[in-house]
Amino acid sequence: MGQLDRISGPRDLRDLDDAELDELASEIRDRLVTTCSPRGGHLGPNLGVVELTLAIHRVFDSPHDRVLFDTGHQAYVHKMVTGRAGRFDTLRTEGGLSGYPSQAESEHDIVENSHASTALSYADGLAKAYAIRGEDRYVVAVVGDGALTGGMSWEALNNIAADDTRKLVIVVNDNGRSYTPTVGGLAKHLATLRTSPRYEQLLDLVKRRLNGVRGVGPAVYDALHAVKKGMKDALAPQGLFEDLGLKYVGPIDGHDREAVEQALTQARRFGGPVIVHAMTRKGFGYDAAERHEADQFHSPGPFNVETGEESPKGRIWTDVFADEMVELGREREDVVAITAAMLHPVGLHKFAAQHPERTFDVGIAEQHAATSAAGLALGGLHPVVAVYATFLNRAFDQVLMDVALHRCGVTFVLDRAGVTGDDGASHNGMWDMSVLQVVPGLRIAAPRDATRLREELREAVQVDDAPTVVRFPKGPPNDDVPAIDRVGGCDVLVRRGAKDVLVVGVGSMAATSVEVAERLGDQGLGVTVVDPRWVKPVDPALVDLAREHRLVVCVEDNGVVGGVGSVLLQTLNEQGVTTPVRLFGIPQRFLEHAKRAAILEQTGLTAQSIARSLIEQLAEGVDRSTRVGSSK
Amino acid sequence: MGQLDRISGPRDLRDLDDAELDELASEIRDRLVTTCSPRGGHLGPNLGVVELTLAIHRVFDSPHDRVLFDTGHQAYVHKMVTGRAGRFDTLRTEGGLSGYPSQAESEHDIVENSHASTALSYADGLAKAYAIRGEDRYVVAVVGDGALTGGMSWEALNNIAADDTRKLVIVVNDNGRSYTPTVGGLAKHLATLRTSPRYEQLLDLVKRRLNGVRGVGPAVYDALHAVKKGMKDALAPQGLFEDLGLKYVGPIDGHDREAVEQALTQARRFGGPVIVHAMTRKGFGYDAAERHEADQFHSPGPFNVETGEESPKGRIWTDVFADEMVELGREREDVVAITAAMLHPVGLHKFAAQHPERTFDVGIAEQHAATSAAGLALGGLHPVVAVYATFLNRAFDQVLMDVALHRCGVTFVLDRAGVTGDDGASHNGMWDMSVLQVVPGLRIAAPRDATRLREELREAVQVDDAPTVVRFPKGPPNDDVPAIDRVGGCDVLVRRGAKDVLVVGVGSMAATSVEVAERLGDQGLGVTVVDPRWVKPVDPALVDLAREHRLVVCVEDNGVVGGVGSVLLQTLNEQGVTTPVRLFGIPQRFLEHAKRAAILEQTGLTAQSIARSLIEQLAEGVDRSTRVGSSK
Repeated sequence: MGQLDRISGPRDLRDLDDAELDELASEIRDRLVTTCSPRGGHLGPNLGVVELTLAIHRVFDSPHDRVLFDTGHQAYVHKMVTGRAGRFDTLRTEGGLSGYPSQAESEHDIVENSHASTALSYADGLAKAYAIRGEDRYVVAVVGDGALTGGMSWEALNNIAADDTRKLVIVVNDNGRSYTPTVGGLAKHLATLRTSPRYEQLLDLVKRRLNGVRGVGPAVYDALHAVKKGMKDALAPQGLFEDLGLKYVGPIDGHDREAVEQALTQARRFGGPVIVHAMTRKGFGYDAAERHEADQFHSPGPFNVETGEESPKGRIWTDVFADEMVELGREREDVVAITAAMLHPVGLHKFAAQHPERTFDVGIAEQHAATSAAGLALGGLHPVVAVYATFLNRAFDQVLMDVALHRCGVTFVLDRAGVTGDDGASHNGMWDMSVLQVVPGLRIAAPRDATRLREELREAVQVDDAPTVVRFPKGPPNDDVPAIDRVGGCDVLVRRGAKDVLVVGVGSMAATSVEVAERLGDQGLGVTVVDPRWVKPVDPALVDLAREHRLVVCVEDNGVVGGVGSVLLQTLNEQGVTTPVRLFGIPQRFLEHAKRAAILEQTGLTAQSIARSLIEQLAEGVDRSTRVGSSK
Repeated sequence: MGQLDRISGPRDLRDLDDAELDELASEIRDRLVTTCSPRGGHLGPNLGVVELTLAIHRVFDSPHDRVLFDTGHQAYVHKMVTGRAGRFDTLRTEGGLSGYPSQAESEHDIVENSHASTALSYADGLAKAYAIRGEDRYVVAVVGDGALTGGMSWEALNNIAADDTRKLVIVVNDNGRSYTPTVGGLAKHLATLRTSPRYEQLLDLVKRRLNGVRGVGPAVYDALHAVKKGMKDALAPQGLFEDLGLKYVGPIDGHDREAVEQALTQARRFGGPVIVHAMTRKGFGYDAAERHEADQFHSPGPFNVETGEESPKGRIWTDVFADEMVELGREREDVVAITAAMLHPVGLHKFAAQHPERTFDVGIAEQHAATSAAGLALGGLHPVVAVYATFLNRAFDQVLMDVALHRCGVTFVLDRAGVTGDDGASHNGMWDMSVLQVVPGLRIAAPRDATRLREELREAVQVDDAPTVVRFPKGPPNDDVPAIDRVGGCDVLVRRGAKDVLVVGVGSMAATSVEVAERLGDQGLGVTVVDPRWVKPVDPALVDLAREHRLVVCVEDNGVVGGVGSVLLQTLNEQGVTTPVRLFGIPQRFLEHAKRAAILEQTGLTAQSIARSLIEQLAEGVDRSTRVGSSK
């Protein structure tokens, strides 16, 4: 039995001596690698926070003290030392541990949201609440340097700095890269701190005195002791935080557990908000991760433990977009690309390699991504902003007011739209086709396959007086689904028998809809399947088609409330079309993590489930005087 | 004919000498006061930027160079000197000048959005575009110190700092107060700059040398000359911006036009991004405004020019909320209040006076407002976040992910919901009841009158496991509309004759709906009017009522696409209720500025218009086989 299996909660960590803690750290790294190897996961970030997490849980007393992670993808080690090591092999499997903190899993977990830059605001609120209620509890927020590029973090720091009585410790986990190297003025500032000669001298001093033993010498202690005296210039110039009125200590070697514990202990004694700046290395302790150039195994798929080789990935939607952007960039000099700290994940690295001067990585800053795109459009260019669908919610107001109100031709490419699955509730991109419905002038394309993605992306970048959206799901695209006809702007995919059922298949659900048609056809029902291609605004051809059929069905990989089907229903109602309408989409609740296919199954979004449900309803008889309920 | 009427465009300003410019400034102030006196407007901020605006337009060459205002409420002077002085008396009237920049009005205008903190992102995008296109144009962003508390500004500064080749000048218009005193660590930092002894010494020196003449002496010139040398520590320590890698000059007396021109000229020569920090006084030059304690006439209603007395305002919705919050605060120690730089406008100053330790003004930082509220809720308190409805869009992702996903009991109070009118497209609160429909668990109340606001606010703060929203419009509430019955959670307001028409009146549209009922009744039609009180989730009682009637009508002061009526239609469809449905709401477009009443008239949201339309339709015959189209 190793050290890890003896840890039933964070208090057990206090009983271990240095050697046992080193052993524990090593076991944790092994467990991280072996658990992530078959299924993938956020390996790199967690390898980087082993010592940091141990130190935090030895100095603070969770769950009485509150430990928040921003983002939660760096909480695997936290999970292991808070009673979940035994179940760690269920990570990111249906019914198993979530890849993010989860209140349902443990009282040690708080922030479940995987969107970045929120922890400081939570921490501010928690600390205020404890102050008001007179509870003596510390709040510790572990924040990646990348998360600090998000505007919310600035709003929070500005507020945290305004009251120096709250017991709040901010651990900046600075690995110089959030997903990829952190960008902007802040990153430069952090780099300056890191390369400060005083810090280098200090490291040398420590090394010399301790003769290679990782630990902390008197010089470090003296420097850290300055915490009590206000910590001004303890180790390095650190104007940025100090100017806001925040105490600062650092930088500390985040892999030197004792040094981190010393710093945290001092910060704890200070009693007001303190920033502890810890330098870590993503992938630390696992060669294959440290060697990995793109992102130190930020979030690999399955890989071989020995070689670090990732299982070959098939071609995914992202690749189709990536290649087409390179083409577009070659053809049109006015096309520019924007990413929010996700150059590789959204596939813009290929465009960037060809056109570095036309590629902008703005950091984890979706608001700025949208509005600077509006500025680029006003300046005569056509920006393509590529983000995960769920993250566009961060910039909803900017899309509405800064882009649409100003009639700017900006194309938003939403990767990982619809059900994504493994990463839990906040990664599913199930909101975009609902909330964007209200934006005047905005147009949404939902390509059904790779060919349509290329086509519709090209159509989108032709629009220069309104925002356009092109959205597609995670993973490999289905095989191309050829059109047999075009009616209005809609591709007709199936036209078989009488005009009994019109199936409107949105995006990747078009392929599902073709399968539904086969099943209905087997029952002798006449079916037409169309892909509207552009789902907002509603194509007038759809209204005519709906009028001609006995039942209208809409299938979408998006929330059923207010989605494409809902607006279609509203439009038909408005136009006096009384054909019964049946809507299939994602029900209105937050989805537990599971594989995409499993969730589609659960929510009834498979061809089998949809066809069965329709056949039952049709057997009961559908005519113009009986509407059929929609799926919920 | 004064100086002002001779100015046909900004280039004319260059021909004026100092005396003429002083005369012009004085005329502009007169015109500001006399124009705002009868109709209200953003007087205080514009009195503060007269010299600043003149200096900008003398140093830069708009529209070749681009001048952006954040927010646009400080652009009145800009309007006057860019060819619109002659029409300035039409300000904020239907068909007249907008209270914000407007691309339709002038090629000198860019950012139409009245939401704060966007200009730096626009500027970043514009400057990048000009760099890529090889155009030699400057971008000047005038940003209030309050706007810098918004996270978007941080995201933009972080990006602007990353490239020092772009021609971008950021003028920080620092009056120490956005609406009310600016809060947080940033505000403290700016205050430190302002009170730097070197700045005070400098002012003294200038005064002595120039013997009271406002202008600039050699010392200032020398200091400003440092711009070319990098401007480090030119006048004061300014670590915050410098640490990000941004050049800084200041602080400059923003009412000393020549000093501002010198600073801008130097900044222009520098050729990279520069921050020019100008100190101004809100209300400068008009006694009544300078004396005004709450906010220096930030945005007064009509007032007397001589005395500065504002016309007595009747009791508005805000007052009802303000008083009830004081009561709630007295009864419940766990109720806390959050505002985003709008303590007075949302009425929380009364609560703050009683419970300062339970009131948090977070600055113009809606994202932080929402997520710190989630933290407060997790800490055992019940936060009430009061913002203008349109500004909640800034925090949509936070409401969804940080509050709803975490099942936090946070109450959002949305003032100025629905049509607001005068302040143009981006102030109308017409989005909330659509976009919030997708948020699982969230509940929305739309009180129809003052009594219901008090009741529903109390019901909202009872909910401790989900977000609640209480939304009400601008201006005075209508007279109370008593209920004659309660069915499910719905108040029945009218029940007359046969069950011909069911009118669902949402919020303030309930009173309108009662009037509609009278008109329909006069035509012999049977009408039931209900106020659902809580419009999300859909009350099952509404479904039953709908089933019993021949026509369902929903009237809401919100976008018709995806709004309350739309979700009601979707629910009826799902439940197999085939009663025809007719929806009345705001059409899907950005509304031009005009009085609220005029816009309701234009969009068909008056009792007369709704009744006429329904009577026409009913005369044509409505039965279960003919649906009636919804208003669009």
